[in-house]
This record gives sequence, structure tokens and C-alpha cells, in this order.
Amino acid sequence: MEVEKMSLEEFCGKVAEKTPTPGGGAVGAVVGAMACALAEMVANFTRKKRGYEDVEAEMERIVEDMEELRERLFILAGRDMKAFEELMNARRLPEDSEEERMLKRKKVEEAILEAASVPLDVIRAMNQLARELEILAEFGNRNLFSDTLNAVDLCEAVYRVAKVNVLINVKEMENEKTRKEFLEELEELGSQIEGSCRRIREMLEVRLWNSK
Amino acid sequence: MEVEKMSLEEFCGKVAEKTPTPGGGAVGAVVGAMACALAEMVANFTRKKRGYEDVEAEMERIVEDMEELRERLFILAGRDMKAFEELMNARRLPEDSEEERMLKRKKVEEAILEAASVPLDVIRAMNQLARELEILAEFGNRNLFSDTLNAVDLCEAVYRVAKVNVLINVKEMENEKTRKEFLEELEELGSQIEGSCRRIREMLEVRLWNSK
Repeated sequence: MEVEKMSLEEFCGKVAEKTPTPGGGAVGAVVGAMACALAEMVANFTRKKRGYEDVEAEMERIVEDMEELRERLFILAGRDMKAFEELMNARRLPEDSEEERMLKRKKVEEAILEAASVPLDVIRAMNQLARELEILAEFGNRNLFSDTLNAVDLCEAVYRVAKVNVLINVKEMENEKTRKEFLEELEELGSQIEGSCRRIREMLEVRLWNSK
Repeated sequence: MEVEKMSLEEFCGKVAEKTPTPGGGAVGAVVGAMACALAEMVANFTRKKRGYEDVEAEMERIVEDMEELRERLFILAGRDMKAFEELMNARRLPEDSEEERMLKRKKVEEAILEAASVPLDVIRAMNQLARELEILAEFGNRNLFSDTLNAVDLCEAVYRVAKVNVLINVKEMENEKTRKEFLEELEELGSQIEGSCRRIREMLEVRLWNSK
């Protein structure tokens, strides 16, 4: 069953039970989709509103992009579960002969690459979301500043969740070059996301608490 | 329809559309339920595991408490939507006579009280979750440290989301005494939650990154 078709109750039940998936990685991607939905709501409430005509086209674009991003995050939630299962299967392969050991090592390395790639994709999605949230904080409907701020808090948490899951897999990678590439992209994206979140908070906290 | 019966896709769709609810408050409560589910998974993977016999009863208790807390958070998600709708209704009441103005003022104040109480309840739930996560970080199955850390990141984000939603409503309260009580409890709970999260991160980050 596709993740997004599960009811909230069912999804939580599956997370809670004693099976390895869905775990933190899939939950992170799902929460990311919810943060995108909040951004989309803010854009929807800015469209066709008097005083916001200048940003109409931009808001329309954000609505479309957030729908796409939500779908992508649900796909990533499913991929996260599959990647984790593949990794467990690879780790269970026999290693009785040199040939088996070689094969197992190759399969484990492939599975780890996928298991690290999925949360990195989630982080790329959060970077896109954070950039859209900056636009919404600056030009979006001011009645929804608190929802924008809520989306920022969730976006940042999903980034942190995914970061832990990238690091935990990168730690086991054998290929030094790939490992280095992952860590570099992680750092680059992380500083972009943290920067966006900080700027949005500075902007919105003033606007939220110093006004009626 | 009860929130927890919605599919993930449906819930995100309803968040995204141009209707005031579900908004950030309901999303926060739902994400809180997912963080509880992660804690429950960690407890489930600790139960009946060799080497963890000493904490069997404690883990059993956590599983039961987290199921209860998940349910409570779904109820809070529904209450959040209702509270927001009631507040909007109260704000639309007429104020043509002194009598109408008095009634409206009373209704708005009541609605604000509920709208601030729901996120405060979410924060109480996150405080309980954070305390359980401290136990899981210290005594839970070490293979699930990353899921425990993921739950901490989500727990803290849900606290922040709910805090914004308490503050935004408290700001409009007329009753000084009630406002002061809300702010005091918010501060007290906030420092407990932040304290738990900090201690867990210190504990787990060492264990996760300094070991194989």
C-alpha cells in the first residue's frame, strides 16, 4: 500500500509496531509533506487577495510547486522504507566463501548508497521548501504568519531528522569519495536551510509579536 | 470525519486548501502523534530483548502511555480545528447594540481561551513525550538511537509550533490573570522540554557518532 493512502491512525500504528519500517526516515518525509501543505495553504490564502496582486503569479507557482513537492516526499517515504529493507536483506547474505563475501560487500554498499540518498533527497526538498517559505514570509498573507512560522519549525525538524539518517548511513560507506561528496552536499544544504529559517524567524517574530 | 481516519494524502490536501482549518495547530498535534509512535516503536524493540530485561516493565508502560498520548493528540488536532472555527464565528457576531457588544466580547474571550488551551495541552503532551524519550535514550535499544533522536527533533518542533499558537491567542486575551497563568505554564513547560531535548542530544550524539 502506498504511504499516502494510509490513514493517519494506520500510519502511526505501523510506525509504532515492532517492525523496522516505517521508522524515523519515513516519518520525516511525511512531516515534510505536511509542512509543504502548510506553505501551500499560505500561498492559497494570498492568491486573489486585495493588496497582494503583485505576487499573484508567484503564489500560483508556489501552490503548484508545493503540490509536486508533497507528492515527491510521499514517494521518498516509500523509498525510505524499501531502502532500509534492502539494507537489512543485504546484511543477512551469507559470507561462507570469498565469492559470497565479495557479493555481500557489494550489495551492502549499494544498499547503503540508496539508504543515504533518500534522506539527502528529503533535505533537498526541505531546502526548496525553506526558500518558498522565505518568499511567503516576505510577501504572503500576513494573517497566516503563524502558519508560515509553524511550517518553518517543521521544515527545520525534518531537515534534522534526515541529517541524522544521512550521517548514520554515510558512516558505513566504504567508498571515501562518495562519502566525501555526501558530507559536502549535506553541509552546503544544511547551511542554506538554517540560513533561510533564521531569516524567516527574524522577519516573522518581529511582525507577529510587535503588531496587533 | 475524525482527523485520524483521514488518509495522509487527504489530510495534506485539506491543510493545503483555502480553508482556515486544519492549519498549523492541527498539523502540530498530528506530528506530535507521529513522534509518540516513534517512541513506542523504540520501546517495542526494547521489550523482550536480551540484555534489556531490567527495563521490561518500564518499556511496557511506555508502549501503553504512548498509545494513549497518540489518541489524545488526535483528539487535540480535532479540538484545534473546532476552536479556531468557533473563534472566527465569535468574531463575526454583530455589535450594533451595547448588549450585542457585551455578548460578542464574552464569546470571543471564551473562544480565545479554548484556542490557547489546545496548543498548551499539546505542549503538556510533548513534555510527557520528552520525559519518555529521556528514558528511551538512556535505557532503550541502542540499535534505534537514530529513531529516538528523530523523535526528539519532532517533539521539539511540535513544542515550538504549539508555543507560537499559544502566544498568538494569549496576546488577545482580555483577562490579565489568565494570560499570566498561561505564560507562566508555557515558560515552565518550555524549559522542561528544552532541558530534556538537550540532555537526550548530548547523550545520543556521543553514542551515535563515536561508536560503530
